[in-house]
Amino acid sequence: MNQTPLSRLEADLSKQELDAMLITDPKHIYYLTGYASNPHERFMGLMLARGEDPLLIVPALDADAAAAASTVSNIATHSDTDNPYALFDRYQGRLGRVGLEKEYVTVSRYEQLNSALGGASFEDVGSLLRALRVNKTPEEVARIRHAIYLIEETLRQGLTHVRAGVTEIELVAEMEYQMKKLGADGPSFDTMVLTGPKTGLPHGTPGDRKLQHGDLLMFDMGVYAGGYASDITRTFAFGDISPELRTIYNTVLAANEAAIQVVKSGITCASVDRAARQVTIDAGYGERFMHRVGHGLGIDVHEYPSLHGENMDLLQAGTVFTIEPGIYTAAGGVRIEDDVLVTETGVEVLTTYPKELQILTD
Amino acid sequence: MNQTPLSRLEADLSKQELDAMLITDPKHIYYLTGYASNPHERFMGLMLARGEDPLLIVPALDADAAAAASTVSNIATHSDTDNPYALFDRYQGRLGRVGLEKEYVTVSRYEQLNSALGGASFEDVGSLLRALRVNKTPEEVARIRHAIYLIEETLRQGLTHVRAGVTEIELVAEMEYQMKKLGADGPSFDTMVLTGPKTGLPHGTPGDRKLQHGDLLMFDMGVYAGGYASDITRTFAFGDISPELRTIYNTVLAANEAAIQVVKSGITCASVDRAARQVTIDAGYGERFMHRVGHGLGIDVHEYPSLHGENMDLLQAGTVFTIEPGIYTAAGGVRIEDDVLVTETGVEVLTTYPKELQILTD
Repeated sequence: MNQTPLSRLEADLSKQELDAMLITDPKHIYYLTGYASNPHERFMGLMLARGEDPLLIVPALDADAAAAASTVSNIATHSDTDNPYALFDRYQGRLGRVGLEKEYVTVSRYEQLNSALGGASFEDVGSLLRALRVNKTPEEVARIRHAIYLIEETLRQGLTHVRAGVTEIELVAEMEYQMKKLGADGPSFDTMVLTGPKTGLPHGTPGDRKLQHGDLLMFDMGVYAGGYASDITRTFAFGDISPELRTIYNTVLAANEAAIQVVKSGITCASVDRAARQVTIDAGYGERFMHRVGHGLGIDVHEYPSLHGENMDLLQAGTVFTIEPGIYTAAGGVRIEDDVLVTETGVEVLTTYPKELQILTD
Repeated sequence: MNQTPLSRLEADLSKQELDAMLITDPKHIYYLTGYASNPHERFMGLMLARGEDPLLIVPALDADAAAAASTVSNIATHSDTDNPYALFDRYQGRLGRVGLEKEYVTVSRYEQLNSALGGASFEDVGSLLRALRVNKTPEEVARIRHAIYLIEETLRQGLTHVRAGVTEIELVAEMEYQMKKLGADGPSFDTMVLTGPKTGLPHGTPGDRKLQHGDLLMFDMGVYAGGYASDITRTFAFGDISPELRTIYNTVLAANEAAIQVVKSGITCASVDRAARQVTIDAGYGERFMHRVGHGLGIDVHEYPSLHGENMDLLQAGTVFTIEPGIYTAAGGVRIEDDVLVTETGVEVLTTYPKELQILTD
């Protein structure tokens, strides 16, 4: 049972009747070998051929970094004056079906591979990699948990700078500074801080608006750390807020908890969305919750699966995703976003930051 | 002479004996139509067919935004339940040679187009677009100039926060806050602030190091604004610096000015690099200048041409690029980077921030 993603993908070679796979998406290479690199226009690939050891191909200037980080020890290099496709000469005419990530590989690279591997036919292996990545190992979950710890600590530190008159972009700068200070690699997406009526825009952009008493204050942010992302949203009151905004807050909180309640291995993605949505419909806010309830989370901050009301794919143990219902009105909006792990018996909520309405003051 | 990039690309259809071009890189669509959008996994394309008006194809939810921004008024839309390739049905069997950006289009999209445009053969048009983009219009130069104004003003404002003990990441946070406050869309690349010996690393990462008296202090940063990038480097002394660091500073400044001196339409890219490099060689620092002198600048922060010592491509009027010689030693490093425009008669330096050594104090 102690299989790595790489050994599982190698097992797919025979299952899918492939002679080889050539993996070139740097995120997949990171996932399979532990070596994280962006080679830009230079060639990098992981060649899995039946009956051979995996071979990692990297630009010569990255050879030391690859050897230090990669679990694949068989490494070939090419310098800027070499033709990297010459490394495939020994496969010429020997390979029939070859797997590629057809949603990643460009036509110009495909044409070069086609000529280098003369005679091969190419099959898409994107779905094989998606099926592996959706099933997180304990090590991956630990990394996501650490990325969540960093963003929750960022939020705690950043909140000490909340005061009347502070602008949204000042709070963005403060949060991004805290992330880096805590050791994150950086934000996993553009940090969102919105105040007052701007919280009513699901995709608002932080600007010069100053925080005022009676405002809602929303933070939607995450970090990358160790190659994995976190993504959390919390909404606060700054001083007294109107009874309607309190009702909206408590409705979103109930929707968030209703969705968490239903999560377990074997249910559809759609049923998670519907559980949250029903709470907003019952409270008369169904039309003000105008996005899916969540998305997969891991090496990408948005990855498979998509938790929307029509997705009949079944959840499986080991999947990490967000649960982030929201209600958006002209007076303001609330979104509460947790990151959760599907377990054999139900769900584990990985985010720990409190969700009860907090009233902040100067 | 008042040709737009789009009309020039349309003229290429007959010159290249193409029946059509399908442009799908969002940056190229922005360049040709003025409509900036990232459609993510949804299909967006600009179809140029001989004898027809240009046709912009966008997801239905972007129809209003595209109509408002695009100079191409002929717009077709597809909803998430449509097959976007059905929009090409009327071309089935009618097109022979079709141009695509083969370095951008993925294999999976190519396979769909191949079947939608049954019978067509596909040619790469990347070099046609590169040839257009290297020749900036006055409007594009004005946008780059504005992006430069914003980063220079950011530097001025941010410098007021320089004091002994401030960390590199605190200064990064301050600079990125100033950019947004001034109205930039965001940094055009990861803002680099390095201090002391870390300035000796051409690709150092800002961290917790605190600024000390006697340090060099280097800022390499830029913004995106109106779709165009700026990119500037300035190096300062914080208090007294050693005579050797002063010598290095003055050598880099002389190299920067020597390179600017030679720029004019018709010389090779290599000669710009060599002019700067000779100054560093003459001063005994040739081996400590271990990168090219610069790169093209525009919609991408690194674009064609590459200003390295082997590039025999000729500069032409309208090209904007960086000139950024540097010398890197264990005691510290200096880089001075300007953005310049090749004109009919020589060069215009677009950056205006002073380059003489400035000694900062608390």
